[in-house]
Amino acid sequence: MAQHRYVLTDTARGIHEPDFDKPIPGGTVRRTTLRGGRREGVDLVEIDNGRFRFAVVPTRGMGLWKGWLGKTEIGWQSPVKGPVHPHFVPLTEPSGLGWLEGFDELMCRCGLTSNGDPGTGANGANQYPLHGRIANLPAHHVELIADDDTGEVSLSGTVDETRFLFQKLRLTATYKTKAGRSGLTIADEVTNLSGDPAEMQMLYHINFGPPLLDPGAKLIAPVKVVVPRNARAAEGISSWNSYSNEQAGFDEQVYFFELLAGGDGKTRVLLKNAHATLGVSLRFSTKQLPYFTLWKNTAMAADGYVTGLEPATNFPNTRIFEGEQGRVIKLKPGETVKFEVELEVHGDERSVSAAEEKIAALQGGTKPQVFETPQKGWTKL
Amino acid sequence: MAQHRYVLTDTARGIHEPDFDKPIPGGTVRRTTLRGGRREGVDLVEIDNGRFRFAVVPTRGMGLWKGWLGKTEIGWQSPVKGPVHPHFVPLTEPSGLGWLEGFDELMCRCGLTSNGDPGTGANGANQYPLHGRIANLPAHHVELIADDDTGEVSLSGTVDETRFLFQKLRLTATYKTKAGRSGLTIADEVTNLSGDPAEMQMLYHINFGPPLLDPGAKLIAPVKVVVPRNARAAEGISSWNSYSNEQAGFDEQVYFFELLAGGDGKTRVLLKNAHATLGVSLRFSTKQLPYFTLWKNTAMAADGYVTGLEPATNFPNTRIFEGEQGRVIKLKPGETVKFEVELEVHGDERSVSAAEEKIAALQGGTKPQVFETPQKGWTKL
Amino acid sequence: MAQHRYVLTDTARGIHEPDFDKPIPGGTVRRTTLRGGRREGVDLVEIDNGRFRFAVVPTRGMGLWKGWLGKTEIGWQSPVKGPVHPHFVPLTEPSGLGWLEGFDELMCRCGLTSNGDPGTGANGANQYPLHGRIANLPAHHVELIADDDTGEVSLSGTVDETRFLFQKLRLTATYKTKAGRSGLTIADEVTNLSGDPAEMQMLYHINFGPPLLDPGAKLIAPVKVVVPRNARAAEGISSWNSYSNEQAGFDEQVYFFELLAGGDGKTRVLLKNAHATLGVSLRFSTKQLPYFTLWKNTAMAADGYVTGLEPATNFPNTRIFEGEQGRVIKLKPGETVKFEVELEVHGDERSVSAAEEKIAALQGGTKPQVFETPQKGWTKL
Repeated sequence: MAQHRYVLTDTARGIHEPDFDKPIPGGTVRRTTLRGGRREGVDLVEIDNGRFRFAVVPTRGMGLWKGWLGKTEIGWQSPVKGPVHPHFVPLTEPSGLGWLEGFDELMCRCGLTSNGDPGTGANGANQYPLHGRIANLPAHHVELIADDDTGEVSLSGTVDETRFLFQKLRLTATYKTKAGRSGLTIADEVTNLSGDPAEMQMLYHINFGPPLLDPGAKLIAPVKVVVPRNARAAEGISSWNSYSNEQAGFDEQVYFFELLAGGDGKTRVLLKNAHATLGVSLRFSTKQLPYFTLWKNTAMAADGYVTGLEPATNFPNTRIFEGEQGRVIKLKPGETVKFEVELEVHGDERSVSAAEEKIAALQGGTKPQVFETPQKGWTKL
Repeated sequence: MAQHRYVLTDTARGIHEPDFDKPIPGGTVRRTTLRGGRREGVDLVEIDNGRFRFAVVPTRGMGLWKGWLGKTEIGWQSPVKGPVHPHFVPLTEPSGLGWLEGFDELMCRCGLTSNGDPGTGANGANQYPLHGRIANLPAHHVELIADDDTGEVSLSGTVDETRFLFQKLRLTATYKTKAGRSGLTIADEVTNLSGDPAEMQMLYHINFGPPLLDPGAKLIAPVKVVVPRNARAAEGISSWNSYSNEQAGFDEQVYFFELLAGGDGKTRVLLKNAHATLGVSLRFSTKQLPYFTLWKNTAMAADGYVTGLEPATNFPNTRIFEGEQGRVIKLKPGETVKFEVELEVHGDERSVSAAEEKIAALQGGTKPQVFETPQKGWTKL
Repeated sequence: MAQHRYVLTDTARGIHEPDFDKPIPGGTVRRTTLRGGRREGVDLVEIDNGRFRFAVVPTRGMGLWKGWLGKTEIGWQSPVKGPVHPHFVPLTEPSGLGWLEGFDELMCRCGLTSNGDPGTGANGANQYPLHGRIANLPAHHVELIADDDTGEVSLSGTVDETRFLFQKLRLTATYKTKAGRSGLTIADEVTNLSGDPAEMQMLYHINFGPPLLDPGAKLIAPVKVVVPRNARAAEGISSWNSYSNEQAGFDEQVYFFELLAGGDGKTRVLLKNAHATLGVSLRFSTKQLPYFTLWKNTAMAADGYVTGLEPATNFPNTRIFEGEQGRVIKLKPGETVKFEVELEVHGDERSVSAAEEKIAALQGGTKPQVFETPQKGWTKL
């Protein structure tokens, strides 16, 4: 048979392959368990399709740790050297900011009950920790499907964000690639397992540092509206789409967007380096992910010189504020919602340029509406 | 020798048998370490006496995960698919409700410093998380004794709930069964290891779902007094002893009891299914466990269709309120208190009926006093 | 080659030797992973130099668990039976006191962002948990160097206390000993990995119980000034340097010191038992560690009969108060600060007496200034 299915983990059936190494179209797939320090016990699945290699962390909500196009690493250098086991991430500390101790991924999901700024609940308790809990919950089912005929490879993991009497949300996260493809597709499903209605949020926190992000790097996006999150972001509004040198004490700048989509309902954004010789583009549906956030954190390299491109169901304000704006997904009992994000690495000028042209086409004659100051409804004023 | 003693874990002597499989009277005992998802690293001890099988979780405070009479599972289907490793249970999150992320056992102990509703301390800090900590602490000593002559089998685990300058309480939890018995006896000891006096609480949270719990199922108990916990429970007081169909959005109903005991100081309660073909009865001393709570949560199956029968040293109100009512156990330095609960599964009509008759005898001519509304001293008004 | 270097853990290179056993000058070094209870998964490195043996816990911030001079154990008997895995220490619980559930070491470091009493932040959240986080973070790099020629042995571990957007502090903790030496030297470095300036604190919490600490035991120190921390400590100021019998309900007494140093900038303190047949002395620089705290907790043995000798960069008041007094270390980007503490065990009267004479020399003709009450600036009044 041309299609092979491997179950790497299935807690219900007592399956958990600690070491796993198989050939797949164009390359190999390998699973290891990391040892020592804060990574003790973290499972890693590395997929190499012959051109692009990437590492997925089932222990951390199926996050995408890093990617490599040949020898070029795609991702960023966090001062936190991960992948960090969720046990060492103090997610529920009263400040709500413990999530930052596990943050070093190329892409991590923020959700499912909430994402965004931590929110203080009724009795002073932090009910919504920064960026939610899904990135620090382990998958209980992981499987790989590889097709010798088509060259397609797909890795899926199922992660439950469930608490008795509270949320019963299930993420089925899938990464698809193909022999020789210089990227991957994230194809997720979130299901409300409950017999009651539910609400959820999803934000894809997709992060890049050097060598892709360098002084003079640019974000190309088909912008309908851009709004600075706060006064600090407003300071940099005139150069929202370009990146400066690393800077000591840099305070992050965040911009909120409405993007333009094509006839297929999809939009594209591109981050390219200063010389336009390296880029990464994202493609996603503005119906599924209507709110786009750009996070600029060009701090010193030692502190994390990084930018985040964040397609989402909402802006990363507090859960309470976003709920008031109606920026949450409502799910009926048993209902499933789907999200898809394509990530393509452009390893040369020609490919970067082609990606840029597609975005120019989406922009067309529309003049971006650039707000100089934070706007009501977009952020809490 | 007819009596065999196996030490499965003893941290003081560096003993920890990861895999263990032995014949015992009537069946086998088997210890495994679970892998993957939130159960990664959880130890499970399964005892089969030839008629009744049950699984104990040393990693989770010696909780009783599930039982099986032949192919009939006794326990419930929580939306939380456990057993969950304590590392993934955010017990100390500010809300005090993190315990609910690990809750899926047939029986788990609530204590030892406190149980019941979370209580807010002086500085806004949650000092008493919901149902306490003992169910999320691991045993450091586990041993099995099997007697070929009598057919008796006994599994003991020691769990310390200790914090320097605070509590120094030790639970020695024992499960006793016998070849061919359709149940088990919980025989616990709690010791104050401190040189100072101490206080403690214990509640046995014994939970049942389908097939035992079905629409029309009934609780049979020798009632002296029954009091609804709150207005929501009061709504259902007229049918406190029967169970309805699953219901979306069902809000739990809780009743507090004083039960009648026999000349031996022991009482009995029975949960039977609608057709009285399956039942479980509990037998315990009202001296040891004078306060009984019934928890009804007939929510949709996906959210946990379940009822809890809860013999305890107190009602599961906040630790502060229960302390004010004097419903705590005071222990001198070095003092030990004992608790015993017998659990019997009734697999046919005859056995269910016999159990029901014993409870009718305890009730005798006493008319239950049924309060229609919450009462002062039973619950905070 | 006479010098051997063994890398026991290096997460960056995927090295983690679970079991390790090698001869070193005078003795052996052995690494094991503990199993069962709250110690499950804790790594222990035991070094025996032929005279003095000690156990280091890489999983717990390179803490010094216990030492043994022959059969005499140096350390204390905590009611918490460790070493406890950090996963079971609720460091971030709202009370800020969860650290006490892991505390049983002969020496543990308190820091790096803060140490001392927990401090409540702006929104009621506990930002500075008791004694900080470094003792509950695992080393990601551990190595041993043994020199056959000199007999010197050195164990180093690197522990990061890092949070994206917050602290980026690195501890490189080293224990040095030599074949036949009856003690060890702690030689630590703390580096600010950030591109921004940072602040840090360090306190060495060095703890002794029986047999060294007994009724009539004494602390010998070259005192310039001693100040009781609070009213409770003031009660015992006249006997601050001697220890009483174990006492039920004993409430800890804490004293703050300015110590006298010799021409080399170093001071010494000695704890000796009642008969002056056993002692431990510490030697350290008052430039590196200018603030010394004595903690007396002569509670019942079951609750921990123990005293703590605590050389530090500050007094263990709240981080906020100490900051106001300027008792924090300021580090430039990339800057490293060093700390060294020598610990020597005196196994006979002669050695105890010799150590005492050296301290008498430091005291010289200086009369200790003993305050009867807490003083402004030393503690929050």
